[in-house]
Amino acid sequence: MTRPMQIALEEAKAAAARGEVPVGAVVVSPSGEIVGRAGNRTLEDKDPTAHAEMLAIRAACMALGTERLIGCDLYVTLEPCPMCAGAISFARIRRLYFGADDPKSGGVEHGARVFSRSTCHHAPEVYGDIESGPSRALLRTFFAARRD
Amino acid sequence: MTRPMQIALEEAKAAAARGEVPVGAVVVSPSGEIVGRAGNRTLEDKDPTAHAEMLAIRAACMALGTERLIGCDLYVTLEPCPMCAGAISFARIRRLYFGADDPKSGGVEHGARVFSRSTCHHAPEVYGDIESGPSRALLRTFFAARRD
Repeated sequence: MTRPMQIALEEAKAAAARGEVPVGAVVVSPSGEIVGRAGNRTLEDKDPTAHAEMLAIRAACMALGTERLIGCDLYVTLEPCPMCAGAISFARIRRLYFGADDPKSGGVEHGARVFSRSTCHHAPEVYGDIESGPSRALLRTFFAARRD
Repeated sequence: MTRPMQIALEEAKAAAARGEVPVGAVVVSPSGEIVGRAGNRTLEDKDPTAHAEMLAIRAACMALGTERLIGCDLYVTLEPCPMCAGAISFARIRRLYFGADDPKSGGVEHGARVFSRSTCHHAPEVYGDIESGPSRALLRTFFAARRD
């Protein structure tokens, strides 16, 4: 597993341990440095926008002192929702690598397909189903436990 | 003009004065209290997610101590983009009132049409083109000045 996706998965596991939906995300700079990393925090922060991708992007912008992450790549364990896809576009992320696909709530390859619209002014290169096994297993275990 | 839209417009004007795209948003609680208000701050905060709607929703969640704004309404001077539409859905906003429509970047009545997808698990009632004249004029003046 690539190092960024490994760290994203660690963030997802840490989110699960906090009772959050286990999703993790990492922003990598053009030089390969990790400039943002986060797991979901919607419950802990009482913030419906606190998805892993949003927090990782905001952390990277703060670290780099810019609202445009030119040349940066985002690794996330699950297909982004429309909100996060919008943020990825505004942040000018170069490449998006995501793990498990999300037919129920995804907004990249499903539903709103944000990057495929003429109203989307910057779309990253998208690489889906990247090392998705552990991410999918983590999500499955999390939701199975909640159904019990 | 309704009081919430008037305040949203004030927030939009304040954003323009800061050099930001002039959009403002207000969250109103079920009892009619204003619990969140904001204008765009993407440049000032160096945060690509700092749209007026996102900031107003986050402020309201902080004020009310919850990540779900059940029964709350959102007033915004411009049609929300896909990112903000996603946040509106996650926040469980009851009614969305927006001013000017946005064929170029909107995500409600244009492009991704986030609320119309089967992957959208909560859609607000949507009232568009609400008292849109002043908002549209503000945006037009702002972008005309930047083109000069």
